[in-house]
Amino acid sequence: MDLTPVRGSRDFLAGEKLLRDATVSKLKRVFELYGFNPLETPALEYLEVLSSKYAGGEEIIKEIYSLEDQGKRKLGLRYDLTVPLCRVVAGNKFAMPFKRYAIDLVWRDGPIKAGRYREFVQCDVDVLGVESVWAEAELISLLYSAFNELGLRVVVKVNSRKLLNSLLSKAGVKEEKFNEFILSLDKLEKIGVDGVKKELKEKGFSVKIINSALSLLKEKDLVAFKSFDGAKDLQELFDYSRVFSLPEGVLDFTPSLARGLSYYTGIVFEAFLVDSVVKSSVAAGGRYDDLVGAFSGKEKIPAVGFSFGLDVICEELKQKALDKTVVSVLVIPFKNTELGVRLVQTLRAAGVNSVVDLVGKNVSKNLDYASKEGIRFVAFYGEKELAEGKVKLRDMNSGVEELFTEEGVVEAIKKGLN
Amino acid sequence: MDLTPVRGSRDFLAGEKLLRDATVSKLKRVFELYGFNPLETPALEYLEVLSSKYAGGEEIIKEIYSLEDQGKRKLGLRYDLTVPLCRVVAGNKFAMPFKRYAIDLVWRDGPIKAGRYREFVQCDVDVLGVESVWAEAELISLLYSAFNELGLRVVVKVNSRKLLNSLLSKAGVKEEKFNEFILSLDKLEKIGVDGVKKELKEKGFSVKIINSALSLLKEKDLVAFKSFDGAKDLQELFDYSRVFSLPEGVLDFTPSLARGLSYYTGIVFEAFLVDSVVKSSVAAGGRYDDLVGAFSGKEKIPAVGFSFGLDVICEELKQKALDKTVVSVLVIPFKNTELGVRLVQTLRAAGVNSVVDLVGKNVSKNLDYASKEGIRFVAFYGEKELAEGKVKLRDMNSGVEELFTEEGVVEAIKKGLN
Repeated sequence: MDLTPVRGSRDFLAGEKLLRDATVSKLKRVFELYGFNPLETPALEYLEVLSSKYAGGEEIIKEIYSLEDQGKRKLGLRYDLTVPLCRVVAGNKFAMPFKRYAIDLVWRDGPIKAGRYREFVQCDVDVLGVESVWAEAELISLLYSAFNELGLRVVVKVNSRKLLNSLLSKAGVKEEKFNEFILSLDKLEKIGVDGVKKELKEKGFSVKIINSALSLLKEKDLVAFKSFDGAKDLQELFDYSRVFSLPEGVLDFTPSLARGLSYYTGIVFEAFLVDSVVKSSVAAGGRYDDLVGAFSGKEKIPAVGFSFGLDVICEELKQKALDKTVVSVLVIPFKNTELGVRLVQTLRAAGVNSVVDLVGKNVSKNLDYASKEGIRFVAFYGEKELAEGKVKLRDMNSGVEELFTEEGVVEAIKKGLN
Repeated sequence: MDLTPVRGSRDFLAGEKLLRDATVSKLKRVFELYGFNPLETPALEYLEVLSSKYAGGEEIIKEIYSLEDQGKRKLGLRYDLTVPLCRVVAGNKFAMPFKRYAIDLVWRDGPIKAGRYREFVQCDVDVLGVESVWAEAELISLLYSAFNELGLRVVVKVNSRKLLNSLLSKAGVKEEKFNEFILSLDKLEKIGVDGVKKELKEKGFSVKIINSALSLLKEKDLVAFKSFDGAKDLQELFDYSRVFSLPEGVLDFTPSLARGLSYYTGIVFEAFLVDSVVKSSVAAGGRYDDLVGAFSGKEKIPAVGFSFGLDVICEELKQKALDKTVVSVLVIPFKNTELGVRLVQTLRAAGVNSVVDLVGKNVSKNLDYASKEGIRFVAFYGEKELAEGKVKLRDMNSGVEELFTEEGVVEAIKKGLN
């Protein structure tokens, strides 16, 4: 029997899981500060919903894990949190603007690479019902605050699909070929200019068109594109971001930024860590004004949203030391489990995460256990301590041992943990 | 296109989701106080692992959602968190005792009834490596603390599989028929004594055996069973629970308590709410000393664990009023979005969850929105307030409006929220 996790998935033992949970908590805190409410939808969706033409696009639909239930219903595991959002909005009458976040597993049965998994968590924030670029400015402010909270510095590359489309049009790309061109362009970071040129040639674009487009897309000054569609939105984004006190230099206008998904209609953005080994983006999103309405067949509902990549963020945060355990204290009773249980219950009542040895190991085995598990304090009862009505406390970091009364030991531990 | 959630699953909109998240947070807090570390395993497992003969038993295996990945690997969605625990323990060398909790989705493609879903959350706590009944006593203490934290009162029915087996044996049930007998007995709460008798008769047990067993199982005084196997464990559980300061009357010795799963080997328990509309158990578990070792083919690893039913707990907690939103303040700017954004950012920096109207609704539409969404405070800028450099604050609960400076309004809101 193969006892490894299913290919493309992972077990998260205490250390990594604690880091993930702490990261998610920080993200949630910032999402809620910005007034987003949580929404949870099922992992399983009807296949028909997941493979709707308005949804993730062919590439993603190919990667759906599909199955049938015993009632022969065709189901699939969700591959993102945007399709379920569209489904829920279509099925409910929410007051607009509707702001929601969702932090949940998604599944894609695709190729596995370093940092790419088949079962992974997406952390999505979306606001529906705001047409103006204030929505993008607010989301990017949220994004910045979230990374700040995590102690990470980011730059946010921004562009506009409208601008990109008009630049492609000016370079001679036909409208029906925009998406094809953009799919290659999106690989600029991964395969470089030459790679993109090669791929575009293979797709049948002329050298003249390719060179003209790529040279237009090298320009970094927004002013140069003043007359183009989408430039006004981007200028507003820069202006509005100042009102949100976003520091100068965080936004980085990048006319070649495409973002793969075809449903984007306006500003798109992608955040990268500064001074990091992690080169892939850590959060990305944009405006998609047509998707939600098209999905429900209702009126148009403007929308902006983005997704944090929990895996890649944790990959960076893991570089620092991991907490190995939630446990702060191990109580070793001396042949008197009752005494140990009473102390551990006192510690718990005082809010200190603690365990008591219930198997009667000797002191040295208990110390080994505490050290292996990364438990900070060990509280002993030895024969001498028992006689004196005292507890010995050992700080595993410093090796220092001190005698305390039972009340005193709780205080000493709480002080030591702060 | 069917836009309802997949049959047997649910969408959790803000109100319910906030309750679920708050409940999970409280459970986690207590699990960690008791020194349990988190473990996360994938939703998908190899079918071979899930359907191992040591796992959930035939009834559950029939209900696995199974599928194939593109590499033709046979996979299934996990139906509990115990099998993944066994797999992880088999594949790692953990120091014993090993204490872990897991709060995660599981899936069972079975019949749907009120309160029974196909996709639901289990909250599991298990301790591995402790042979003595101290482990059960500590887990039941944790269980009691957790419900206390949630503001719910419970009684915990307890029994021992060993005692049950020896009573069945005394009544004349053959050892190889124990599980068959127990499966019917487990339905006592659901189908009553007559239903159980009828089912046992249909299974071929004689009236004499049935009556003899059921009359033995009516006895509520543990002393009556002193000479039977398992009675000593139960007596210890009562004694040790006192050391954990478990209040008298929480434990309820119930010799007919069986718990369906065949892997239990010792004490079993099941918690029920006191004074509640919810009649089904809210947490249940027991000792399973053979499963973990058998699974990995290693030496025997004693284990005790139990599972909280998040759905049924939230069903009870929902009876009280639900918070509808995380948002405490809606800022309405007066034709001056910048001013509103500055105030909302000040509120967020002070830790107050808030939103600002970015779509320029008029005041009365904004008040409607705040009222519908359950937002407590609305901060206005009107013409008069702007001239005076003030903000008007309306408490939506009381209808009271007051004028404040920008600094003053933050303080007033924080005071009002406490």
